[in-house]
Amino acid sequence: MKSYRKELWFEIPSRRGFVNITGEVDACLRASGISEGLCLVNAMHITASVFINDDEAGLHQDFERWLEQFAPHEPLNLYKHNNTGEDNGDGHLKRTIMGREVVVAITDGKLDFGPWEQIFYGEFDGRRRKRVLVKLIGE
Amino acid sequence: MKSYRKELWFEIPSRRGFVNITGEVDACLRASGISEGLCLVNAMHITASVFINDDEAGLHQDFERWLEQFAPHEPLNLYKHNNTGEDNGDGHLKRTIMGREVVVAITDGKLDFGPWEQIFYGEFDGRRRKRVLVKLIGE
Amino acid sequence: MKSYRKELWFEIPSRRGFVNITGEVDACLRASGISEGLCLVNAMHITASVFINDDEAGLHQDFERWLEQFAPHEPLNLYKHNNTGEDNGDGHLKRTIMGREVVVAITDGKLDFGPWEQIFYGEFDGRRRKRVLVKLIGE
Repeated sequence: MKSYRKELWFEIPSRRGFVNITGEVDACLRASGISEGLCLVNAMHITASVFINDDEAGLHQDFERWLEQFAPHEPLNLYKHNNTGEDNGDGHLKRTIMGREVVVAITDGKLDFGPWEQIFYGEFDGRRRKRVLVKLIGE
Repeated sequence: MKSYRKELWFEIPSRRGFVNITGEVDACLRASGISEGLCLVNAMHITASVFINDDEAGLHQDFERWLEQFAPHEPLNLYKHNNTGEDNGDGHLKRTIMGREVVVAITDGKLDFGPWEQIFYGEFDGRRRKRVLVKLIGE
Repeated sequence: MKSYRKELWFEIPSRRGFVNITGEVDACLRASGISEGLCLVNAMHITASVFINDDEAGLHQDFERWLEQFAPHEPLNLYKHNNTGEDNGDGHLKRTIMGREVVVAITDGKLDFGPWEQIFYGEFDGRRRKRVLVKLIGE
């Protein structure tokens, strides 16, 4: 069994944002030499997500509006978590809806995707350096 | 390490629907000859889900009502994604709540499930052929 | 390839609650002897969750309030599922938001976590014995 590990680093300049990381995950797969297996991609921070959806700007604006509707950033005192001195209570909930991780099949040395699947990093408390873990196992 | 891959195809006659695919995934496991490992089942389309829950018709009606409440199909102009000419902006959000994938343990050649766990395909933009990927690794 | 399996049992004394199970999962990893691989942790019941987030009491109160807002326990007749004689329709939906499972990378014999990641059992229909499955594969 082979395994491969890499951290991807991000510093999103605003509080929230989405970044297509499919190419970076694909580069990990090529570097690993794995042709059959599983690929785990997860946010290492608890106010960020990794998810799979469409690379379409309108959809990303829809996600932003929708997440803000269900877990608004303000008022800050809506969240007991913010009593710790943080202001990211909403980010923990937004990340919960979008998910921490994806698992992708590796087949014939490729990410085994449907026609529109792309992997995104979702940031909900940015303006600082944060990480995504890529872990592959297989042979 | 052994691996196994199969695509399951669906054409749901309505916009939305749930299909119990546990038997089909179980058939993949038997065909694979794998007795210990992991089983990934994921929607290959970004307006569809694979999830685990109860095979109970009332619950499925609850899911339908609840998802429509949080991401209504209409008005179509609620979603910027629909400016692309699509009418499935809601489907992308509904699938986000229900999830893209499940990972199931394989133990002693069986899907290692609790008493009521069943795997479902969730369709949120049907009336066309779409796929689910089953990928198993183990030995 | 090595594999390891253990069931963790819980009996939460109230309807809902969160339990940090990171230590128990870590003990499974040490018992497995696996140094590189993947760790699946999933609820075996369909009104319970396994998720990763912060071990902060205020955040857990925020989750409780937020989930109750989106899938209130009462009125019981809000859920067709409760027509079966159950009163846990809300629990099925709450678990859907929080997720059934997590997959964690195993690197150098450790759960490969970011600085604040902790694994939780989330109970949404407690006061009875229920199980979580820990399954590890790797070498």
